[in-house]
Amino acid sequence: MDELPHFNADGGSHMVDVSGKPVTHRQAVASARVVMQASTLQLIQQGQAEKGNVLEVARLAGIMAAKRTGDLIPLCHPLPISSVNIELFGEAPDTLVIRSQVGTEGKTGVEMEALVAASTAALTVYDMVKSADRGVVIERVQLEHKSGGKTGVWNREGQVDR
Amino acid sequence: MDELPHFNADGGSHMVDVSGKPVTHRQAVASARVVMQASTLQLIQQGQAEKGNVLEVARLAGIMAAKRTGDLIPLCHPLPISSVNIELFGEAPDTLVIRSQVGTEGKTGVEMEALVAASTAALTVYDMVKSADRGVVIERVQLEHKSGGKTGVWNREGQVDR
Amino acid sequence: MDELPHFNADGGSHMVDVSGKPVTHRQAVASARVVMQASTLQLIQQGQAEKGNVLEVARLAGIMAAKRTGDLIPLCHPLPISSVNIELFGEAPDTLVIRSQVGTEGKTGVEMEALVAASTAALTVYDMVKSADRGVVIERVQLEHKSGGKTGVWNREGQVDR
Amino acid sequence: MDELPHFNADGGSHMVDVSGKPVTHRQAVASARVVMQASTLQLIQQGQAEKGNVLEVARLAGIMAAKRTGDLIPLCHPLPISSVNIELFGEAPDTLVIRSQVGTEGKTGVEMEALVAASTAALTVYDMVKSADRGVVIERVQLEHKSGGKTGVWNREGQVDR
Amino acid sequence: MDELPHFNADGGSHMVDVSGKPVTHRQAVASARVVMQASTLQLIQQGQAEKGNVLEVARLAGIMAAKRTGDLIPLCHPLPISSVNIELFGEAPDTLVIRSQVGTEGKTGVEMEALVAASTAALTVYDMVKSADRGVVIERVQLEHKSGGKTGVWNREGQVDR
Amino acid sequence: MDELPHFNADGGSHMVDVSGKPVTHRQAVASARVVMQASTLQLIQQGQAEKGNVLEVARLAGIMAAKRTGDLIPLCHPLPISSVNIELFGEAPDTLVIRSQVGTEGKTGVEMEALVAASTAALTVYDMVKSADRGVVIERVQLEHKSGGKTGVWNREGQVDR
Repeated sequence: MDELPHFNADGGSHMVDVSGKPVTHRQAVASARVVMQASTLQLIQQGQAEKGNVLEVARLAGIMAAKRTGDLIPLCHPLPISSVNIELFGEAPDTLVIRSQVGTEGKTGVEMEALVAASTAALTVYDMVKSADRGVVIERVQLEHKSGGKTGVWNREGQVDR
Repeated sequence: MDELPHFNADGGSHMVDVSGKPVTHRQAVASARVVMQASTLQLIQQGQAEKGNVLEVARLAGIMAAKRTGDLIPLCHPLPISSVNIELFGEAPDTLVIRSQVGTEGKTGVEMEALVAASTAALTVYDMVKSADRGVVIERVQLEHKSGGKTGVWNREGQVDR
Repeated sequence: MDELPHFNADGGSHMVDVSGKPVTHRQAVASARVVMQASTLQLIQQGQAEKGNVLEVARLAGIMAAKRTGDLIPLCHPLPISSVNIELFGEAPDTLVIRSQVGTEGKTGVEMEALVAASTAALTVYDMVKSADRGVVIERVQLEHKSGGKTGVWNREGQVDR
Repeated sequence: MDELPHFNADGGSHMVDVSGKPVTHRQAVASARVVMQASTLQLIQQGQAEKGNVLEVARLAGIMAAKRTGDLIPLCHPLPISSVNIELFGEAPDTLVIRSQVGTEGKTGVEMEALVAASTAALTVYDMVKSADRGVVIERVQLEHKSGGKTGVWNREGQVDR
Repeated sequence: MDELPHFNADGGSHMVDVSGKPVTHRQAVASARVVMQASTLQLIQQGQAEKGNVLEVARLAGIMAAKRTGDLIPLCHPLPISSVNIELFGEAPDTLVIRSQVGTEGKTGVEMEALVAASTAALTVYDMVKSADRGVVIERVQLEHKSGGKTGVWNREGQVDR
Repeated sequence: MDELPHFNADGGSHMVDVSGKPVTHRQAVASARVVMQASTLQLIQQGQAEKGNVLEVARLAGIMAAKRTGDLIPLCHPLPISSVNIELFGEAPDTLVIRSQVGTEGKTGVEMEALVAASTAALTVYDMVKSADRGVVIERVQLEHKSGGKTGVWNREGQVDR
């Protein structure tokens, strides 16, 4: 079944054989949005300056989660990550954007690592503000860009611009 | 700083002291949506019947991730989870809904466990369909309901009804 | 489906709800046998006295694995283990027996913890002797005894006696 | 002590130095048997069709455990696995066979990864049927085949044929 | 062997049985010192204000490591931690003190959790400054205080006062 | 900020990009001292001969922790370790020295892996003797030597000699 390569002819799941693939430099960029009350985002932004660094906690959670992607996503190959960068910035009075970039020299891409990083950073923001604003929603967890490997470069149309 | 309880008076992060809280029965329900091409959702739904069970792989990934919440979210307390249920169902031709329910007998709630479960299940769906449909987006990762503890019951307005 | 309680009415897997169960003292004993060339078992037994403690390495691997049972077995509840004991002894010139005993105060039993401990200890013995004897076989990984909980005491007929 | 390379001259355990070894393509096949009541195996096989996929849960548990071999087996090298396949099939009315195949491009073999996969899949089957049949026994956890590296190909005599 | 309770009468290691012990509130305080060039400590302290929060990264590493104590220390019981606090402060122009406080409601103490937290925070500081000052030394990793359980309160003589 | 490379221009932490670095053979040696009552060290040394192998338990804890360095130290790259050796020896009637040596073929060094190994082995010794001697102190956790990579060989002045 070509369209769902994680299953073999009998329908059983497997970890796809990548042993014949070349090692290439690969990168992926993913993003997530955390939509909250404007007063909650103000609280986060004031905290940066004064009282507690929500964004740094989220960033570290994302970096550490990226390293554990192979443990979390059942059919992912374990990969030696060579870089992780996570930015967090306000996009609207009620919206925080998280943007993660992951690189590796490997036989498979790091799309999942970038998505796990962005998603875990977003969940960590939720954890820290939930007592003030339980209704926060994580939106648009998505791949923005990937490069390297046989399928080369892919960019989301209308990708986040900054 | 009452609004951001994960930080102390000096702005340093900490794991909040819950030793004085009573052990109560707590539940949380969270959800996530995976929005994809209608043909991709058909592929998943056909696979259920014939060739590969995307939904069962995602469900297990979510259950296992719920147990690792304390490892992923830096300031979360480790909790002895007493139940995890994850449903996945089509809501529209292009939308798969993931709904997770987690219970515990503990001193803090399981909101993060439910959100980690839903989010990881959604990421696992993405991993399995990404070669066919790289542009899939995870939307509305959110808490639907929680009960137990001092703050009692909370329901999202206009909550998923089923 | 009563016979396979890890699946719900729709056939999806879940972590069974144990929130209504009482906390009781629970114990489980499991065993495994490692069958090897008699010369390999001699090598292990001499090593104990002189040159390297295969049995202690295996014992520690088993103890540490017992603590990670909830991470390894998808639908297992995480449990606060209160004791682990592992014995390793020769039963025949070519057979090493591993016997693990695990206790907890919890809402579910520790059968899986005892089996994971015995099994991981056996695999660790294999790892250490495989360059000398690659054909080693692990036999009879099995529960010997469990107590506690609603179903009370269970003993394997013709159980290992020592 | 050549026969037990995991111990140095003083008898202390160590992780053997593989830095001078070449990276080669390596494969290993391992197997395990789960022996149960014939009615239990029927329950599993009916569940495949209707009510709950024991085999798929076991397969995923095995794949995920293979990735954690270096965490479980104390003196194993961490390895970048490039493929994992696990088959489960009935061999007799009371016997389920689990057969795992693992590949890597690395400096040491994946025998332990294949054995951990087969063993964990077998334990997961036990977990799911234990309430119906507590006496299930895991038999013959063993290496069937390995290739790659200095010692080249090894096959178990009278190996599982399928 | 009373003096080394982690070993049984045969000399094998085991996880001590704590099932008969009462659950009490327990606390432990540990500390570590990181001794470096005065210019390196200035770099850290300026970074706090301007360019990068070494202390917050170290604090989070310590909190997260405390939760994994049972995974790292072979014979430790897994414990449901109820609080972790870590302070980092300059004690001399070349010395950073790390002070961790951990609490639980459990059957064994949290001395190891507090020590793992302090030690991991110290190692994380080293990681971040090592390119500027490779010779940094971690000194006096030690328990300062513990309370709860049968042995009650213990205080180090001449304990850090603040 | 060149002196603190783990932070970018905005002060956010990141995992430094090592994708452009060559893979070289790298080694690191670290050490730690455990200072205790002379009677406690005697207890450990007698145990070696008779009743329980504190040093072997500590050694294994150190080896296993080295493999988890990337999980513990937030901004460390995951690395495929190719060897770990840990020696433990008495240096004075009240002082046990732990000396760890780690090697890899990689793009970054293994200083942190060696330090995590020595530190975790020291904490494990503490765990096993703490009921007899709670005041034990871990001193001088430090890098002794590293080689490989752009910065080449580094040796601590007045390094442990043996």
